Amino acid sequence: METGAQLLGRYLDELARVTDEPGRLTRTFLSPGMRRANALVAEWMSAAGLAPREDTAGNLIARLESPAGPRARTLLLGSHLDTVRDAGRFDGALGVLLPIVALAELRRRNIALPFAIEVLGFSEEEGVRFASAYLGSKAYIGQLRAADLKLVDADGISIRAALEAHHGAPFTPPKAAHRPDRLLGYVEVHIEQGPVLEAEKLAVGVVTAIAGQTRAKIVFKGRAGHAGTTPMTLRRDALAGAAEFTLAAEALALRTPGLVATVGTISVAPGAANVIPAEATFSIDLRHPRDAVRRSALRKLAAVAGRITRRRNLSFTWTPTQDNAAVTCSTALTALLTASVRAVQGRSLGLPSGAGHDAVVMSALTPVAMLFVRSRAGLSHHPDESSSPADIAVALDALIDFLTRLARTYSS
Amino acid sequence: METGAQLLGRYLDELARVTDEPGRLTRTFLSPGMRRANALVAEWMSAAGLAPREDTAGNLIARLESPAGPRARTLLLGSHLDTVRDAGRFDGALGVLLPIVALAELRRRNIALPFAIEVLGFSEEEGVRFASAYLGSKAYIGQLRAADLKLVDADGISIRAALEAHHGAPFTPPKAAHRPDRLLGYVEVHIEQGPVLEAEKLAVGVVTAIAGQTRAKIVFKGRAGHAGTTPMTLRRDALAGAAEFTLAAEALALRTPGLVATVGTISVAPGAANVIPAEATFSIDLRHPRDAVRRSALRKLAAVAGRITRRRNLSFTWTPTQDNAAVTCSTALTALLTASVRAVQGRSLGLPSGAGHDAVVMSALTPVAMLFVRSRAGLSHHPDESSSPADIAVALDALIDFLTRLARTYSS
Repeated sequence: METGAQLLGRYLDELARVTDEPGRLTRTFLSPGMRRANALVAEWMSAAGLAPREDTAGNLIARLESPAGPRARTLLLGSHLDTVRDAGRFDGALGVLLPIVALAELRRRNIALPFAIEVLGFSEEEGVRFASAYLGSKAYIGQLRAADLKLVDADGISIRAALEAHHGAPFTPPKAAHRPDRLLGYVEVHIEQGPVLEAEKLAVGVVTAIAGQTRAKIVFKGRAGHAGTTPMTLRRDALAGAAEFTLAAEALALRTPGLVATVGTISVAPGAANVIPAEATFSIDLRHPRDAVRRSALRKLAAVAGRITRRRNLSFTWTPTQDNAAVTCSTALTALLTASVRAVQGRSLGLPSGAGHDAVVMSALTPVAMLFVRSRAGLSHHPDESSSPADIAVALDALIDFLTRLARTYSS
Repeated sequence: METGAQLLGRYLDELARVTDEPGRLTRTFLSPGMRRANALVAEWMSAAGLAPREDTAGNLIARLESPAGPRARTLLLGSHLDTVRDAGRFDGALGVLLPIVALAELRRRNIALPFAIEVLGFSEEEGVRFASAYLGSKAYIGQLRAADLKLVDADGISIRAALEAHHGAPFTPPKAAHRPDRLLGYVEVHIEQGPVLEAEKLAVGVVTAIAGQTRAKIVFKGRAGHAGTTPMTLRRDALAGAAEFTLAAEALALRTPGLVATVGTISVAPGAANVIPAEATFSIDLRHPRDAVRRSALRKLAAVAGRITRRRNLSFTWTPTQDNAAVTCSTALTALLTASVRAVQGRSLGLPSGAGHDAVVMSALTPVAMLFVRSRAGLSHHPDESSSPADIAVALDALIDFLTRLARTYSS
């Protein structure tokens, strides 16, 4: 007979074949692939005894009522079903499919839970089509705003128009799916997308917080000049300034525990081998699980940019492009999850999430917790993204253990 | 009556209107604009008493015989008549037109020279059409090689095919225009294209040497990773490595007198704000008037690249794209030119040329000397390139003084 882990592996394989682009995995908000993915996952939800439906924002929502009746509160489990372009098969999908299989397993063992469950497959998290992320979870918590609905895709189609075409009816943003006091929390299983668990030789780990994030576009401006005729002391080299900033950001992150700082893009103008760069345009991405640390780092780097440009006779602009506060995971849910992880793999590791997840948005509605699964080589957003069947089996056992542990807490 | 300096200003204005591209100045090898430029400049040469002709490589050559007869040796004066795209009006043109006006002025003063003169308007120096520079001067000294003739332009036309179309006849590369022992040397007047004379508040200066030049394309390779989930200590950030190299090159040049080092281009892959750069591709341009210093700097920077990449667990490739030896200017001609500059502006400054010039190629045939004219803001290869009428007048006086000084030396 097929084990739960085997069933989950088969689901992941089948869902990975549902794509908008032949030959590679791509599913974007409201695409034909997403429609087929929702239909397929809804079948699996039904097979596990859940009652699936789709909300007006394309979120797949499957409910399992509790034998305790309508007075029981609800635990939310889920992640997203959309993907980046040319995606791996685990990011998002794992956090939707694993709970379905966990619930199927509990049902097979005749274990009833004293609370209701909703398994959520969010319709949009990656921000691919509308360059705006978390549309699914925002809709679910009643936070899809008029401004969001006006965003347009590459073809000039607005979110509102796309939603109305999808439903063939005028669109009204959904209200929050639940009153917070009717919820137990939101638990998301996700691949780590980083190398920490691999380095620690652990299959799974418990997320302590989701890092806050600041992104900015920085431009240093100096003066172009002939590479052969301009003496070093008379130069105003924008790239040399940007190089100094890049290393200062790296050094600050290295000496600040938990801080990551990345210059991921850079371009220079005029951009010729024999011309001193007059302009360097680059990005900075700063993240830390504690907002105070991130904000302090931000202030320090802005001061560094000021010092470098003053000393080099450059000017600079700093344009914020993103600013998200950190999310601290629920102490209670995280303690339970930690106990479950200890039970199934002997040791638990708490680690921050450097990437954003649906849990960021869900934290505005209810306490959140996250279970990370080891990613091979920390790789993600790539077809080679991988978590081993053995690691996924550990994650499945941990979630089953967590549900039964929460059931014991809940009844007590 | 129009002074020599006014005549020269008028010539510069008129020649600046001869272009292949309406609205901006562009003249490339064998283009219609170059044909018209040669015709126009040939008229001015004739008006100054010179006998112009064009060689098979499109070089404009105007000879002024000496009253001393055919046994007199020849002094070569000139520069190039082609331009970069959207060029300034001084680069090249000044070095062809100024000698014509200087000779017209000597003629007006009834001063005959005891040596012959050739004023040269080289047909190609900038390397725009065939991405290979100095085609005109190479042809003049008999160094245009079969390999050069095979180079093709953006339309796939070879240099040989372009030359044959230009002449309507099979092309045979010209032999060297002169035996070295029949020459006195080559003197080139050129705008500085750098800020040194401006900083020194001098109209003109004398070039001591033309810097040797090394250019290379460098690639640092590391590993991409999620900017949020990859701890600083587990990164292999190619851009951070490139930033370190950029600063090391700058620092080496700052502490090595006369050395200039420039990273003028850089690009990273994948190139997203939230992805650690896996690859950084950048250029290095190193120049020094002494080859030994440049080679030593090159070895040091290769070692620096090795150390940085080893420490950061990156790999690197270093592909040389250009390597030109330095040219030392003729001691005798330079001493005369210095005396002339002292005579006309009170003080002379010797300075190296960081840019390459026709004199680099001409040095293979005969001793060379160069006179630099102050460039406003050191600007060149730009429509705003400018040398003031007053500075050009000083340069004209200096060249006239130089010719009469050389005449005294020659007769003695």
